Order: sequence, then structure tokens, then C-alpha cells
Amino acid sequence: MLPPKSNFSEWYHEVIQQAEIMDVRYPVKGLYVWFPFGYKLRNLVYGRLREIMDREHDEVYFPALIPETELGKEGQHIKGFEDEVYWITHGGIDRLDVKLALRPTSETAMYPMFKLWIRSHADLPLRVYQIVNVFRYETKHTRPLIRLREITSFKEAHTAHRNYEEAEENVKMAVNAYKEFFDSLAIPYFVIKRPEWDKFPGADYTIAFDTVMPDGRTLQIGTVHHLADNFAKTFDIKYETPEGDHAYVHQTCYGISERCVAALISIHGDDVGLILPFHFAPHQAVVIPILYKGKEEQVLKFSDEILKKLKEIGIRAILDDSDERPGAKYYRWELFGVPLRIEIGPREAEGREVVVSFRDERVKRKIQADEITEEKIVKWADDMHDRLKKRALDLILEKVRFFENAGEMEEWMGKGVAMFHLCNSIECGESIEEQVRAGVLGEIIEMPEGVHADKEGKCIVCGGDGRLNAIAKSY
Amino acid sequence: MLPPKSNFSEWYHEVIQQAEIMDVRYPVKGLYVWFPFGYKLRNLVYGRLREIMDREHDEVYFPALIPETELGKEGQHIKGFEDEVYWITHGGIDRLDVKLALRPTSETAMYPMFKLWIRSHADLPLRVYQIVNVFRYETKHTRPLIRLREITSFKEAHTAHRNYEEAEENVKMAVNAYKEFFDSLAIPYFVIKRPEWDKFPGADYTIAFDTVMPDGRTLQIGTVHHLADNFAKTFDIKYETPEGDHAYVHQTCYGISERCVAALISIHGDDVGLILPFHFAPHQAVVIPILYKGKEEQVLKFSDEILKKLKEIGIRAILDDSDERPGAKYYRWELFGVPLRIEIGPREAEGREVVVSFRDERVKRKIQADEITEEKIVKWADDMHDRLKKRALDLILEKVRFFENAGEMEEWMGKGVAMFHLCNSIECGESIEEQVRAGVLGEIIEMPEGVHADKEGKCIVCGGDGRLNAIAKSY
Repeated sequence: MLPPKSNFSEWYHEVIQQAEIMDVRYPVKGLYVWFPFGYKLRNLVYGRLREIMDREHDEVYFPALIPETELGKEGQHIKGFEDEVYWITHGGIDRLDVKLALRPTSETAMYPMFKLWIRSHADLPLRVYQIVNVFRYETKHTRPLIRLREITSFKEAHTAHRNYEEAEENVKMAVNAYKEFFDSLAIPYFVIKRPEWDKFPGADYTIAFDTVMPDGRTLQIGTVHHLADNFAKTFDIKYETPEGDHAYVHQTCYGISERCVAALISIHGDDVGLILPFHFAPHQAVVIPILYKGKEEQVLKFSDEILKKLKEIGIRAILDDSDERPGAKYYRWELFGVPLRIEIGPREAEGREVVVSFRDERVKRKIQADEITEEKIVKWADDMHDRLKKRALDLILEKVRFFENAGEMEEWMGKGVAMFHLCNSIECGESIEEQVRAGVLGEIIEMPEGVHADKEGKCIVCGGDGRLNAIAKSY
Repeated sequence: MLPPKSNFSEWYHEVIQQAEIMDVRYPVKGLYVWFPFGYKLRNLVYGRLREIMDREHDEVYFPALIPETELGKEGQHIKGFEDEVYWITHGGIDRLDVKLALRPTSETAMYPMFKLWIRSHADLPLRVYQIVNVFRYETKHTRPLIRLREITSFKEAHTAHRNYEEAEENVKMAVNAYKEFFDSLAIPYFVIKRPEWDKFPGADYTIAFDTVMPDGRTLQIGTVHHLADNFAKTFDIKYETPEGDHAYVHQTCYGISERCVAALISIHGDDVGLILPFHFAPHQAVVIPILYKGKEEQVLKFSDEILKKLKEIGIRAILDDSDERPGAKYYRWELFGVPLRIEIGPREAEGREVVVSFRDERVKRKIQADEITEEKIVKWADDMHDRLKKRALDLILEKVRFFENAGEMEEWMGKGVAMFHLCNSIECGESIEEQVRAGVLGEIIEMPEGVHADKEGKCIVCGGDGRLNAIAKSY
């Protein structure tokens, strides 16, 4: 049994373990084990991400170990990461001449090679990505999929372009790619430009995707950085222009981690377990025969026929013909978030009917077996996607409010996202952060469907010209 | 231009870089960067391996960091790895309480969890695998794909069974799975039981796959270990038997690294570059239009039609309509090992014909465009596979000899594999290793097709009863 989802923190911890996403019992803080079921889900989610990335990017793999000499080159960058880098100091019993960092992210592993790869304007744009493990020495409270010491599935893309504007076009492309990805997961999000003091170390600016978790705290699920020529100057990445001059490239990088799986689980799940969108469920359908003495054979035969039919259509379907009671089977497959349940008893077998229900609705409907067609299943999957999206948006609407008064906003912190107007000054930003004890997420570029607020207004602190910002307690 | 393959060491180094498999210029010894093309090849090869593994195993992911306390538990195991483990001693500026090892392999990461996962006989067999990066502090000469400090693509499987015999059945299953894998790559191999003094640290026995490289040195490309209950006793992995007793599990583990890609490249390649089997080539076919002034349009239109047709069949095909001369294009795509080349000039376009040639044969044949069908391409791929297999076997035959005389065998070392008879004593094994200055690979279980020798005979050292063994200089 799970704790109720209203007790989100405990619910999350338990659902991760009971639904066999990750085993939290590994003997090092902040490190977890992907169970087979969890890893299947992970592969399906990342398969979609890969599909989107493969359109414009080449997949590569760069080493996990970065020499101290390279990691330290870009001043802002190393300042941002130095407290959380794992250092390898010894190989066997030998002390290493140059300490090696376990990559916290791969700018400084990749860009010395970009210098070698890029010669002329014809080599641009360069767009690569990799899906790798990265490491952070987290001293805060760790949590599976959300705050880890080994991020096992970091998709990081890195690009180089001829100038600032072309890099900015790529930022837009990346934002659109991420929107497509999260839309396919039915995860709603804010697109937010991070404030100057919270951008990626070494970036010109950072655009983030934030979703809202059931407890009202936000979760950053993706970031896109415009690096301008900051790293190019550090790593001396130049190209020959069509005119024969030499110019620094402008770069972008953008990443998504297994937090996308955390969001998927947290936003769609309910008191009884996971609810997985059809396209990402490791088991998309479960056939459950309801057995009565003397009628087992007919029911099992018909169940098997339905299973075969589903598989032929290309559905990841399973048959649960175990000895457990039907109730126990329902419970089990609801916990694992199987989108489509098909029950078959003696009466159904006789009439060539089945009882279908969807994980999110939990309403039974009897239909003729012949009605199960590829077209029908596509429609079912689409309908379920729409329902999940609507439900997720409804939940977000409850957790987002607009404020003109800082005192009221302070009350709201911990319950959800506050929107308000803020001028561009660091002073006003810091002042409001202090007052409400939460972090400014930045200027809102795009809101989830149904959320409305004026893009411009008076700064909540100084009353000057302000723009729409968001603030919240964050994971 | 590549050095001739007869100069294997230089050829290998150059082909890896020029054919864009790995970039060897990363600024740390023994660490390399997978280029986009190389990584596509890697993904195709590992896709096949995954397919084979997925039949009997679940994919999982265990952490890359192993606490010193776990890594050190199994005495033989840690003795085997202690000289080559990378140690993380610091997180940020903090010294860690317990040093963390970067996994050299994952027995000691997995088995503490197996203890928690396995309760009863119904949980057995347990079979999982993962494809991960592992790390070895190599002090010897490093080489891309062959001897690395970060093995980027280690497929390691780990299983648990009720008793020694069932684990042994699994060893056989694993050996068969690996045979299927290497057969599909047309890589010939010996299956060899490693001598007692060269088995995996902590294993009961080790079975290895060794192939023969063009310079006559062997390359270990896969290993299968029977662990008996050695690790189970160390990590206290017990299960409840049907009778209600508690017994230790018996385990196996088996691994394949990116050496399989090294073997693929080395065994099939020739003086002009890669030769890739059809199913693993990132580009399976290249269409090259031969352009003459005034006839460009017709040729390009027909080339495009052929490209579309190939893609419809499901072939990874490209069109090279760049401005380079045909000779330069041939050279380029031969370097990259494209199996099927299709040339189209004005005469061909007119007659709806094409000139096809295969990378391994380099013989041109004119055929009607209509002859390009899915069935035909399947047959071409099969035929090419058979030719590559035969060529690889022919090369191995030249590099394997049987010896009854240790002096002659000494002469042969560095040129190929020597087969000979050896008794089971460590003394005779060490004596012959010293005399010929090479390592005994162990008792031959299976030889490549066409290699023959008696399984039993007189020990080359003591003259007692011996069994067929192999010895060679190895990578």
C-alpha cells in the first residue's frame, strides 16, 4: 500500500521503490539502482528524446574523466562547479600527476576537441549530443531521479555556430524540441528565462523548463543555454569565415536528465500507483482472465487469443494468468501504471466480449472483441493522453497564482508558484527572494495552457517597470 | 592515405582516426572520443548484442561508484583489481569518509543488492545485464577500443541460480549467445577455458573468446565466468529452497566490451579502409552520380529515384552529390566501409541501369534498376557475410599452427597462435610460458571452422597426458 499522494514526499519515495523504478537501498547516499521495470520506462522515455535529437544532432561519446587543467579553464564555469566535483586522485596506489574530475557536465571535455573539429564555416553548425552519466557531490538531501550523486541519464547537447544570432536560432530550435518532448509526456511546464544571478556558469543566458510538482514545489526539468563566445574564447575555438577571416564560434548547450522520469511519475500518478501514458508504458496492456471452476479452459483460450491479437497490433501486452485473485492482480498492475486493462470472464469468452478499463479512469466498459483494432487503440491512446494532459493542467492551475502584494506572496510560498512583476535590477530580485524565502525562477516566456497574467506591470518591490516573473520553492 | 594493413599497428591507429571511429586526440592518455560515425557503428553492433541479451536477461543500471568497503570484500577479487582501480577521495574540497572506486566491473556493486532481491527459489534464475562505462587505470600501452582507461561500452551480465549445475547450464547458454553474436559479425574465434592462474579474480573458472588479429596476436573479445558460490558466500546471498532450507546461490557473469568493434574493424578491413558487414554499416549503400555537362539533370533525377527506392526497402542509403570527382568519392566511401556502391552515369540513367559493386570485392557489375529488390539485397548481404567469414577464416588458418616441439613454438610466437598439448600442472604451464615468452590461453574448447588438431596428446613439457591448449602473444 502507498501513502496517499497528498503526502507527496512519502508517496514519491514509496512509489519509486514499490513500483520498481529504482531501488533506494544501495549502500551509498544519493546513488540508486534502476530496477528492470524502471529501466524499461527510462529507455522508452529516452528513446523518444533520442528520436527528437537525432533529427538535428549526431550522437557522440566523450570521456567521463576531465583533467583538472581543462575543467579549470573557464573561470565562471569552474566557480559554479568546484564545490560539487568528485576528484580522482589515485590510480591503484599511484597518486595521479593531474587530478581527474568525474564530469559534472561535459563542456570542458568537449570543447578542446571542438577546437580540433572546427576549421571552416563549412563545419558549422556543429550539433552533437550524448546520453551519459554525470556526477555531482550533493551535500543537500538526495532523492531518486531528482537529486543524485550519479545522474545516470544526462542527455546533453552541444552546438557551435557562426555568430550570436545563429546560436540564438538554435536556442529556439532546442526550446521547441524540448516542448515537443514534454508535450509527448503530457507534462506541463513554464518556459522561463533564469535571472542573471542564476544562469548556467559560463553562459550568456539560460532558459529553463520548470514543472510544478504535486506539493507545489517546482522541478527544473530542462535547460537551454546560450554560451555566446565565452567558452570559444577560453578554448580558442575559431573558424575561417567565407571571407577568409578567423572568428570565434558562438555556442549553445542544453540538457535533460532523469528528472523527466521523476516528473512523469509525480504528475500523473495517483494514490494507487503510477499512471503511465500509453506510448511510454513498459506494459501497455494487461489481459486478466477471471477464472471459475470448470470454465478455465475457454477463458484462458480466449484470453490468449486477445493477447496475441494485441501483440500483432504491436502493443506491449502481457497476460496475467497467475494464481492470484483478480483483486490482487488489479492492484498490482495499477501500481505499475498499465494504461489498458482487459478482463475476460466466462460470460465474455462465450460472447467474444471483453471488459476494458483505462488506468486513469478506472471505469469498466464491455466491448466486442472485434472492436479491438489498431485504429481503436491509437484513438484510446490519444484520448488518454488528452485526459492526462487536462488533469495535469487542472492541477497546475490550482498551484499557480498572480500576486501584487509581497506579503500575500510570502504566505503562498511552499504551496505553489507565484507570478508577479519584477524589474531587471538584482537589488529588487534579492530583496523579494529574502522576503518570501524562495528563489526567483526568472522571467516567464511561456505559461502552461490556461494560466494567464499580464506580461508587463509594476515591479512588486520598487514599483518601476517590471516584467512577469515566477518565484517558488524548488527541488 | 592509410599505411598498408601489413603494418597493422600503424594501420589500426590511422584507420580509427581517419574513418572517424574515435578521435585519439583527447588530452588524457587512454581516453578517446567516439566520433558520430564511430558511435553509429557502435550502436548498431550493441543493438544486436542487446537483442540477443534481451531474450533471457533484464536490462538494469547499477551505480558507477562502489564504496571501498564493498569492493574489498571478496579477497581474490580485490587482489585482481587493486592495482588498476581509480579512487575518488574528494567531493568538492571535502575528503570523503569512505573512498569510492570507479567500477572496474560491477560484481561488488550488484551483489549486495542481489542479497536483497533474492528471497526464495521462485526468484531464481535471476538474469540481468547492463551496458555501462567501466574504468581501469592502465599503465601499459593504451590503444583505442582495445586497452582503455574508460571502457565506454561494457556489456556485463550477472546471474544467480539454485546450484552449481544450473549455473553451469547458464554458462553454456551464455557461450552460445556470444557465439551467435560474433557469428553475426563474421568474426572467427577460439572458445578457450583459461588456465587456473589466469581466471577471473573470484571465479571458479573462466571461458574466453579469443580472436586472432592480423599481426598474429590474439584479442580476448568476450569472457564467461562460473562464480560458483564464492561471491554468494562473501555477500551472503541465500535463498529458501522448496524444502524450506536456506542455500547459497551459484552465480555466473559474462562480459563483452568495445573490443568487439576493434575486432570487426581489424579483421575485415583492408589497405583502403573499413569493410563493414551489411547489417552493421551505418551507411549500407552509397549512390554516386557520375555527372557530365548537360546531362546532370537526368542522372541526378534517376540517382534520387534509386536512393528513395533503397530507403523504402529500409536500407540506410546516402547519395553523394557533392562536387568532388568520382575517384575521390569512391576513396571516401571505401574508407568508411560502405558495403554497397551504386554508380549512375548518363548511359545508366538512360537505360534505367546501375553499376553495383561491393566493398569487399571491388568488382563492378551492371544491372537493371528493377533488379534492386528487398529479396536481392537480403541475398547480397548474406553473400557478403559469407565472403567476409570465409576471408576471415582463411586468414586465421595462416596464423594458427600445431606444435610438438617447444623450440619451434618459440619461433612462432608473435606470428600467430600455437596449439599444443599440455598437462594440467601449473609447473608445466609456467615452464612453457617462460620458454616461449607468451601466455597460455588455456584449453581449447572450440576452434574456428577449418582448424584441426587432436584434443588429447602428450604434454609438450613433461610428456604426460595432456589436452589441447593454445598459447600466443596477446593484446
